Parts: sequence; C-alpha cells; structure tokens
Amino acid sequence: MLHGAADCVKILYVYYTQIIKKEAVEMEYILSERVKTLKPSAIREIFKYAADPSVVSLSAGNPAPEAFPTKAIAEISAKILEENPIGALQYSVTEGYPPLREAVADYMKKKYDVGRENDDIIITSGAQQVMDLLTKTVCNEGDTIICEAPSFIGSLNTFRSYRCRLCGIPVENDGMNLEALEKALQTEKNVRFIYIIANFQNPSGITTSLEKRRAIYELAKKYHTLILEDNPYGELRISGEDVPCIKSFDTDGIVVYAGSFSKVLSPGMRLGFTIAPKPVLQKMIVCKQGEDVHTNSWAQMVAHKFMTEYDFEAHLTSLREIYRKKANFCMELLDQYLVPGGITYQRIEGGLFIWCRLPENTRISMSEFCKKAVLNKVCVVPGNAFLTDEAEQCSSFRINFSTPTDEQLEKGIKILGKLATEVL
Amino acid sequence: MLHGAADCVKILYVYYTQIIKKEAVEMEYILSERVKTLKPSAIREIFKYAADPSVVSLSAGNPAPEAFPTKAIAEISAKILEENPIGALQYSVTEGYPPLREAVADYMKKKYDVGRENDDIIITSGAQQVMDLLTKTVCNEGDTIICEAPSFIGSLNTFRSYRCRLCGIPVENDGMNLEALEKALQTEKNVRFIYIIANFQNPSGITTSLEKRRAIYELAKKYHTLILEDNPYGELRISGEDVPCIKSFDTDGIVVYAGSFSKVLSPGMRLGFTIAPKPVLQKMIVCKQGEDVHTNSWAQMVAHKFMTEYDFEAHLTSLREIYRKKANFCMELLDQYLVPGGITYQRIEGGLFIWCRLPENTRISMSEFCKKAVLNKVCVVPGNAFLTDEAEQCSSFRINFSTPTDEQLEKGIKILGKLATEVL
Repeated sequence: MLHGAADCVKILYVYYTQIIKKEAVEMEYILSERVKTLKPSAIREIFKYAADPSVVSLSAGNPAPEAFPTKAIAEISAKILEENPIGALQYSVTEGYPPLREAVADYMKKKYDVGRENDDIIITSGAQQVMDLLTKTVCNEGDTIICEAPSFIGSLNTFRSYRCRLCGIPVENDGMNLEALEKALQTEKNVRFIYIIANFQNPSGITTSLEKRRAIYELAKKYHTLILEDNPYGELRISGEDVPCIKSFDTDGIVVYAGSFSKVLSPGMRLGFTIAPKPVLQKMIVCKQGEDVHTNSWAQMVAHKFMTEYDFEAHLTSLREIYRKKANFCMELLDQYLVPGGITYQRIEGGLFIWCRLPENTRISMSEFCKKAVLNKVCVVPGNAFLTDEAEQCSSFRINFSTPTDEQLEKGIKILGKLATEVL
Repeated sequence: MLHGAADCVKILYVYYTQIIKKEAVEMEYILSERVKTLKPSAIREIFKYAADPSVVSLSAGNPAPEAFPTKAIAEISAKILEENPIGALQYSVTEGYPPLREAVADYMKKKYDVGRENDDIIITSGAQQVMDLLTKTVCNEGDTIICEAPSFIGSLNTFRSYRCRLCGIPVENDGMNLEALEKALQTEKNVRFIYIIANFQNPSGITTSLEKRRAIYELAKKYHTLILEDNPYGELRISGEDVPCIKSFDTDGIVVYAGSFSKVLSPGMRLGFTIAPKPVLQKMIVCKQGEDVHTNSWAQMVAHKFMTEYDFEAHLTSLREIYRKKANFCMELLDQYLVPGGITYQRIEGGLFIWCRLPENTRISMSEFCKKAVLNKVCVVPGNAFLTDEAEQCSSFRINFSTPTDEQLEKGIKILGKLATEVL
C-alpha cells in the first residue's frame, strides 16, 4: 500500500478536475442530481496517499498518537465487556446512551453554560453527522448556508450533498467580516443557517472574538436564521483565555451546537454530539434513525466511563500540553524557515492547523507551489480546497502539526522553506 | 425509566397520528419539506417503552442475548488495544478497514458467489446506512422505489426521508407477485430500484423462491432499474436449503447487496457492508464521507479478527441452533394457543420474525387487537406499520421470538391466545 510522490501529485490535482472515472461497463447508471457534481474530500483522499513513509504529510488533521488515553480505554473496555457485554453489543436507542448524554450535558452546562430548557442532547456518529442531520432537517435543495471563507471542507461537502447554495464570508483575524455577513443575510434567499467554527478555525486557525460572536448571534436573530456552531477544537487552547461559546448566549433557541470526542478521546470511535433546540433535534433524531439507527453503543459506554470515572480534566490538561509544545515548535520552525522566504502566517491560540500565505506577486501560484512541495515529498493542503468556490484564487495553504513527529515537522518545513527561497 | 402499559399504548397509537409535538417556544423553526412528514420508526419508539419488565415485548428484532460471542469479542478487543491501539482509535479511510473489506469480500465470494470484477465493497455503519447511501446516490426527490408490501419499516422510512415515492408489491408465500411487479415497472415513473429482503423477509418471514429471484432480476434488467438486495438474516436459516442471492446472478451490474454484522456478531457495533457496482459505490463513498467520515475503526478490527482468527462457521452453526430452537418453540406455542383462536401464520425457514394474520370478519380490527394486547402487557407490532401506505387496511401483526426468553415467549403467546378467544 505504498504510494510514491507521483501518486500524491495525482491525487492532489485530479481533485481539481474529475476524480470519479467512468467504469468500462455497459450499464448506464442514473445518478441523483445531488451526487453528480460531488467529489471526495481532497483531504481524505490525500490521507490514502500520504501513507508513503518517504513523504512528510502536513496535510492531515489527526490527533497526535501520544494524545490517546490508550491504557484507560483498554481498562474501561475490558470492564464493560466483563460487567455488561450485552449492553455494549445490543441494539440501543437512536438518541444515544442515556448516561453519556447526561454526562456530556452536565459537562457542557457547568463548563461552558451551554444548554437551556428548550435544548436537548443526542449522541452522533462523529460531529460530521451533526452537519449532515441539521442540513437534512432544515434545508431544501437550493437553500443557502452562510459559512466562513475559508471553512472546513468536510462540512462544505456535506452541505453540497444536499444541493445547498454556499455563501462564503471572508474571515478576518477576529472572525467573519460583519458587513459582508449582514449584506449576505439581507440579499441571499432562504438562508437556513450560519456555519461557524469559532475556536481555532479549520483551516485559518483564527478565533472569533467575543464581540463578533455576540454580533453574529444578534444578526442571526435579526434575520431569523439558525447558527451551527461547530466546536471540535475548543478544548485544545494552548494560550489566551477561553471565549464563551455562541451557544451560551442562546436565549432564543437559534443555535445548534456540534461537539466532538475526536480530538479529546479518539476519532476512530466516531463519537460526537449535538445540543440543539428540541423541535429541530426531534427531526434530526428521525433522520439519524434512517441513517445508522444509533451510534456504536460500546464506544458510547467507554466515553461515558472515561468522562465520569477517570480524571477527564487532567487528561485535557495533558492534551493541551502536548499540542502547546507541538504548535510552538511548529511556529518556531515557520519563523526560522518560511517567514524569511516571504511566507506569512497567523499565530494560533489552539487547534491543529496553521494557515500560511504566499507573498504577493510570486513567480508561481499557490497550486504550483503545493504541487512542487509534493514532488519534494511534503504534502500540504492547497487553500482553495476550503473555499465555497474552489475555482477562486487563493494564495494560502494549510499545514497541520499534530500528526507528524517533531522530526517530520522539521524536515517538512525545511523543505518548504528551501522551496520558497528557490521558486517564489 | 420504567413505563407502564398506558405508555405503551400511547407510543403505539400516537404513531398513527402525530408524534412530534410542537414545543412551547416563540421561535418558528423552518423545516425542510423532506422532514415535515417524517415520523420516528414505530418499532424503535416501542423499544423505549418495552423496557417495563412487566410487559412482554414481542415487538423488537434484537438478537438473542445468548447469541453474542462476548468472550471472543473481549479477547480480541484486548489484543487489538494491546498490539495496535492507535490503529483502532485513529481516523481511518471512508471505504473501511482494508483487511475487513478483503475478508468479507472473500467470504461472500466463496460462500455465496457474490461480487464480480465490476463490484467493490465498503464497510458501512450498519446495513441501514446502505439504504441511506444508495437512496441518496440514485434517487432524486419524487423518484420511485418499488418494495415488497409489507416491508422493513426502517428502510421505508429512509426512502421516505429522501422524498421518494414508495410503490408496494404484494408478497406471496414465495415472494413478490410478479404480475404486479411488472405492471409497476411499466407504469411507475422514474423507478430507481427494487428493494427486496429475499431471505426470511422482515416482517412477513417468507423466503423468495429461486424462480422468482431469477424473474425479478430479469425484470429489473428489462426495465433498466437497480435491485437493492438486503440480506440481514441470510445466515440464520433453520431449515431447508440456501437459495442463491440475487446478487449472485449479477452479470449486468444492476444489484446492490447490503449485508450486516448485526445478526451474526453484534448490532451495537453498527457494522454493515455493501457490495455494489463501482460507479454507484464511488458516489456512495462520497456521501458516506459527508455523513460520518468512516465507520468505527475499532469495531471493524474486532470483526476482522473474529472472521479470520476464530471459527466463524462454528459460531454461525451455534447461532442457527439457538434460533432453530427458539423459532420451533415459538411455532409450537402459536399452534397451541393462537391457531385454535383462528389466527394463522406462515411457517418460517429462518430469520427472527413470524407474521400472524387475524381471521376474516373479526369483531375487532387488528389495530384494536394490538392495543388490547398492550393493555394485557404484550407488545406486538401492528402490520400496517410495514406498509407503504400505513392507512391501508391490514389484518396482520408481527411477532419476534429472538429477544424474549422462552418463559416470556410462552407467557406472551398465551396472553395473545386468551385475548384472541375472547375478542375476535
């Protein structure tokens, strides 16, 4: 399963053309309108090819291997399979394992003041499923979703899969441009929700300020639209102070909050949750029944015991320490090797990603730079993968520092730095 | 969390009216057209209320608790978390864990001659996700899906969630009525696929004959439509000979096969798979990325080791023995207590369900009979829950024998028998 650099080039750039090839069969398959233009996520496709050990991948978003509480998970799992194997292996209810729902609801209320009387919580198969279920529940084909530009490609693809129109609002260092947001709310038709990653945004790394969070909430209220607040990285703050979640202001029942266990426990377990107004949540539950009946019961029981019988806060502190070291090391490397070549970046206060920008008037485009990087055995993600219109010009690329080892990170960034000096 | 018989009545019958109540909030939520009329699965709603230990539930479809290989699963899981914890807990590829895909593909090819050069296999989050992904991939809103009448409510609800039109074909003792099927293929517009559970159908218990399987395949080919062959119970044959899967005839690339680990390993692990023509499968993969990124990696690794390092065939033999005993015991009870009261049923050769029919010209309707059963503390599922048009008249109900203990089964069927004598 090893793939060379040529494969990486292929997978990165075939993405811009057409990835699904027609098979040589006689049958002409009729596909739905919604999937005709759908393409696989560039990033997930890259994962497959970044397996070549000679390629340094700065393209993933995987938690650091040392961040998994493997010993605790093994202990808990053994205990569950000893004490209540049928509970872990049998069918369960769509809403999720009740003790886990309760533990997460308590945690979110106490720590972040998230969740009010009109809200309820369900467990989902990763936070990705929240994006899917909400879109399915509130959007007709052709309805508009406002999102940050750039934004997380996985969510954008989910929205596209329901044939929603995407309207991207440029992101500044403290969050969306409010004038552009209000204009979009005034002029776009059938805006169903504003999608926002307020903490350590993927891919830009920025954190939306408290002032802008309040303003975005007020605008959503004024224009009668919902907010989908996606917060996968919220626990991974490495500096500065926590900013209140938009959901914590939600006296009007207009915010759907998406949370994830992927970065704090394990992404392979596929556990997420949503805290949302009950009338919306009830329809999301019906949609979830039709999608996967319920989320893996065993994983839910493991997460519950990990949250309630282990020192969850101490675990989060140790994660933040791991990522603080890695992020700071990465930013030092960028300062040393990329900044002298004219590449700039926004310093981050948490999360897993750093957004790097090529200087103006370079000899080669960002796409060409990323292509050359792959040929030099470093994978990064071209920035336009994160735009609502991928054909738009973009001079940025995303790097991830959580997945590579320190040695790989140093090697990769040195190569990017050398390349920048040579070709920009 | 205990609920009395009154709650059971409520949940069974509220289903026929309107289950989602409007919350007393000011916000008017705009819901998509597709979810406005969606209702929770009657059966999954019943699960929640069948928790009252004084109620005998013959309404579920859970594997028997004694059918779980709990010791093997605990051993395998401990080994995986010891040897390769990061592999089990980290992000993985959307298509599924490659060794599991290979093991299932080999198994299906060798045992059932399922899978050809133009096919590929992916792992899904339960077989339910196959219904979802295929509908999303090939159906526009308003397109038609032909299904058996009665059919599995979970799948029907998935189809409804994409606003597909359902066309039910009456099921005879050996499968769908072929004249009605051909007429539907001639007259219905935009038929995208025929949905069929050919083995021990849920809820009717019937098995489609080889002759009809071939005829259905030829009709699908003639009218240029796909077949979705859902086979969750295929391994649970208790008498008679295996009938070849429709997918085994598929030289034309028109059959999508849905398989499940829920009845042979564990439903709580949420593992299914699909073997399908590559051009369709590739779009299903993109849709899966948007729904849940990938299926729980840990569960996939457990299933792989269970299939390849344990005696999977011996496990299946032991399952068949468990269900043979339970099914035969159930049919004896029906002969003894229900048949004298005029209730008839079709003997089964496998699966988990028996379909019971009230005699003609009874004093009370099937719905009233089921309601009285709940008041007498036995839950069964009213047959019209399984129809494409639930308002249609139906004189049958479904009972399940895998979930209750022998004592519960005997108690429940005695109550039904007494009731039949008194009220029919």
